[in-house]
Amino acid sequence: MRVIVLGGDGFCGWPSALHLSTRGHEVTIVDNFSRRNIDNELEVRSLTPIQPLSVRLTAWRQVTGKSIAFERLDVAEQYDRLVQLINEVRPDSIVHFAEQRAAPYSMKSAWHKRYTVANNLGATNNVLSAIVESGQDVHLVHLGTMGVYGYSSVGVKLPEGYLRVKMTAEDGAEVEQEILYPPNPGSIYHVTKTQDQLFFAFYNKNDEVRITDLHQGIVWGTQTRETRLDERLINRFDYDGDYGTVLNRFLMQAAIDYPLTVHGSGGQTRAFIHIQDTVRCIELAIANPPAPGERVKILNQLTETHRLIDLARLVSNLTGARIEHVPNPRREADANDLEAANNGLLGLGLEPTTLREGLLREVTEIAGRYAGRCDRSRIPCVSAWTQDIAKACSSKPGLGRAKRVNESLGS
Amino acid sequence: MRVIVLGGDGFCGWPSALHLSTRGHEVTIVDNFSRRNIDNELEVRSLTPIQPLSVRLTAWRQVTGKSIAFERLDVAEQYDRLVQLINEVRPDSIVHFAEQRAAPYSMKSAWHKRYTVANNLGATNNVLSAIVESGQDVHLVHLGTMGVYGYSSVGVKLPEGYLRVKMTAEDGAEVEQEILYPPNPGSIYHVTKTQDQLFFAFYNKNDEVRITDLHQGIVWGTQTRETRLDERLINRFDYDGDYGTVLNRFLMQAAIDYPLTVHGSGGQTRAFIHIQDTVRCIELAIANPPAPGERVKILNQLTETHRLIDLARLVSNLTGARIEHVPNPRREADANDLEAANNGLLGLGLEPTTLREGLLREVTEIAGRYAGRCDRSRIPCVSAWTQDIAKACSSKPGLGRAKRVNESLGS
Repeated sequence: MRVIVLGGDGFCGWPSALHLSTRGHEVTIVDNFSRRNIDNELEVRSLTPIQPLSVRLTAWRQVTGKSIAFERLDVAEQYDRLVQLINEVRPDSIVHFAEQRAAPYSMKSAWHKRYTVANNLGATNNVLSAIVESGQDVHLVHLGTMGVYGYSSVGVKLPEGYLRVKMTAEDGAEVEQEILYPPNPGSIYHVTKTQDQLFFAFYNKNDEVRITDLHQGIVWGTQTRETRLDERLINRFDYDGDYGTVLNRFLMQAAIDYPLTVHGSGGQTRAFIHIQDTVRCIELAIANPPAPGERVKILNQLTETHRLIDLARLVSNLTGARIEHVPNPRREADANDLEAANNGLLGLGLEPTTLREGLLREVTEIAGRYAGRCDRSRIPCVSAWTQDIAKACSSKPGLGRAKRVNESLGS
Repeated sequence: MRVIVLGGDGFCGWPSALHLSTRGHEVTIVDNFSRRNIDNELEVRSLTPIQPLSVRLTAWRQVTGKSIAFERLDVAEQYDRLVQLINEVRPDSIVHFAEQRAAPYSMKSAWHKRYTVANNLGATNNVLSAIVESGQDVHLVHLGTMGVYGYSSVGVKLPEGYLRVKMTAEDGAEVEQEILYPPNPGSIYHVTKTQDQLFFAFYNKNDEVRITDLHQGIVWGTQTRETRLDERLINRFDYDGDYGTVLNRFLMQAAIDYPLTVHGSGGQTRAFIHIQDTVRCIELAIANPPAPGERVKILNQLTETHRLIDLARLVSNLTGARIEHVPNPRREADANDLEAANNGLLGLGLEPTTLREGLLREVTEIAGRYAGRCDRSRIPCVSAWTQDIAKACSSKPGLGRAKRVNESLGS
C-alpha cells in the first residue's frame, strides 16, 4: 500500500515510517522539521545523536535496499501543495503525526499556546479538507492521546472512544445514546486533540472520510528493530523538561547520578506503550481500516498503566537513584486511578513489550551510553500551568532547589 | 462598566454596542471589517444602506451625545495589540462576536473551511489567552449557537449546555456525571463553535476565567430601538445565499414577487430570536456574570421555535407569495423536532418579541422599503455541503430552476 507519514521525521513518525517500509509499504515522509527547530528554540538536543533526514534516508537505502520518499511541507500552512501531493501519491492511508505533541511546551507562554492551536488544528483540518478535495478514498490514521479522556476518574473503565449513556427525557423516560467519551483535557495541547475529535466526527459524517483515531499513552523506549540496524537510523531521545516524558526524565536523572524528581505525590497514574508497539499499532491500524460509511474508529493505544511513584521506584531499583518529591508544575489531581480498555489493538494482534522486560535495556543502551551528551540544566520541568503555580514552584524548595543543584553541578 | 465588543461593526455587534452605550456602559468596538470585506468577495451588499463605521459613530454622538471608542484590530491575528488594548481599557466584560458566522459560507470551498477554522479558533483562543496574560478578572461573553447541539433530536428537551448522564461502571454500578451536552455540529462553522466550548471549559478550569456562552438561535429582524434613531445607524440586512438566514430569504423573495424557496420538505425546526432581544440578552449576560470559580455559564438564547415550512406560510400569508420546494444544499435530516430550555435568560428578565407581532413591521420597514437595492441573482443558496449535493442541486429542477428564473428576471 502507499502511505504518507505526516511528521515522519519525529519521534514516533520516523520509526513508523521505517517499520511500514520494512513491511513492504511505499512510504512518503512529509515533514517541516518543526521538531528539530523547537530543539533550536529550547537550546536542547536529542540525547541520541540523530542524523539529518537525508542521512537517515540514505542509510535506510544502503542497509535495506528500500527507498522512502520525502517532501518538505508544512501541513498546517501549505494546503495547496498538500492536495497536489495527495493527487500525485494517491495514498491508501495517511498517518497524521504532524502535531505539536508536548503538553508542557504548549503551556510555556501565550505564544506557545497559540502556536500549538494554530499548528495542530490547522494541520488536522487541512489534511481532512485535502482528502475531500482530492476525491480519493484515503484512510486517515491519527495519533490522539489518552489525555483526551482526562485523568479524573469517574469510576468507569475508559472505553475505546465512545460511551453509552442514559439521559432522562422531560416525561421521565430514559433515552440511551452512544456519545464520544466526554473530554477533559489537561493542557492546551490536550485541548487540541479533543478538538481534533470533533473535526473527525464531522468529516466522517458529512464526507464519509474513513478515520482511525489512536488514543496513545505515554511512549517510552527509543529504538525499534529498524532504528537499531545502523546508528545513523537512531531515534530521538528527549530528556528536557518540555519534551522529555516522565520516564525519560527518570532514566536520565539516574544516569547522571541525580535524584529522580517526582512531581507532587507521584500518585498520578498514566498509560504507557513502548515505541516498538507504537509502530506495530500503526501497521495494524493501516491494515484494518473502518468500512466505508463506518463511524470514526477509536482505539486506545496503550499496554500498561502505572503510578508515577511506582515508575520512579522501578528505575530506582534498577539504578540505585534516590527519589525526591518536588512541587507539581501542572494543575492536576495529586492522584488518580486509570483503567482503560485496549482490546481493539490486542485483538488485531498487538503483543505488548512491558516495562519490566524492556526498561533495563533502555537504561544501558540509551541513557547510560549517551549520558555524556546530557545538558543537566535542561532536565527540570519549568513550564508551569498557571502564573500562581510558577511562583510556587520557583519560591519553594523542590523545582527551585533542583535548578540550583543543577547549576552547582556546573551544567 | 467598561465593555469591549469584538466584532462590534457586524449584524449583532453593532446594535449590541449601541444598546450597551445607551445603558451607560463605556463601550469600545473592535473590528477588522471582515464582514464588509466578505460582502466585497461575494459581490453583495446589505439590503439596508449601512454606513461606514466612522459615520455610524459620528451619528451616534450627534444623536445621543454618547461616544463609542473604536480600534481596528484582527482578533485572530494581532494578539499583542489585543493584550495591550485589554491592559489599556481594563474592561469588566468582553463580548466576543469576532467569528465568521455563516454555515453556508464556511462550506463554500476548502479555502472557506480553512478561513473559518483559523479565524474563529484563533480569535477565541487569543481572547482567552490575552485575558489570562493581562492578569485581569474579565468576564467573557461569547455568542455561540443552538447548532452546537445538532438538530437530530434524541427525544430530550435541550438543556442549557450541560447534561446529567448515567454511565454504567464495570461492576454494573451506575455513575452519574454532568457533561457538556454532546455536540453534533452540522457544518464547519458549527464545528468551530463546538471547539470553542472546549477552549472555554479548559480556560475556566485551568485559569478560572469567568465565561458566559450564549447559544443563540437564528436572529431575525433588523432594527433595534437605537438603530432606528437615525438612518445612518441602520443595521445590516443580509439576504444573499450565504449570509441571509432563511427568514430574510423569504422576506426578500416576497418583496420582489418571487416564490419562497423552501429547502426540502421544510420540516426542519429551528430556534429564533429577534435582534432587539439579542441585544437585551447581551446586557443581561454582562450584568449577571458567573461567580469567581464558577463553571462556564451556558444559556440558550432563543425565544421561539418554528418549522421552516410554517415560517414560509407565515410570510406567504402576510405577503401573498407562493411557496416552492427546492433541493436542500445541506446534508441534514429532512425534518426534526426541537425543544429547548430557555429559562435562564427569561429568568433574568428577557421579554420576547415574537414573530407574530414583529414580522409585519419587518416586511414593510425593511424588505418593502429597500427592495429596489436587491440583487435578485444573489438570493439562492449555492454553497452545497458535499460535491454530490452540489451536482444534485445544479442538475435537478429547483435551485437550478430558481437560478434560471432569476436570470430571466434580468438581475
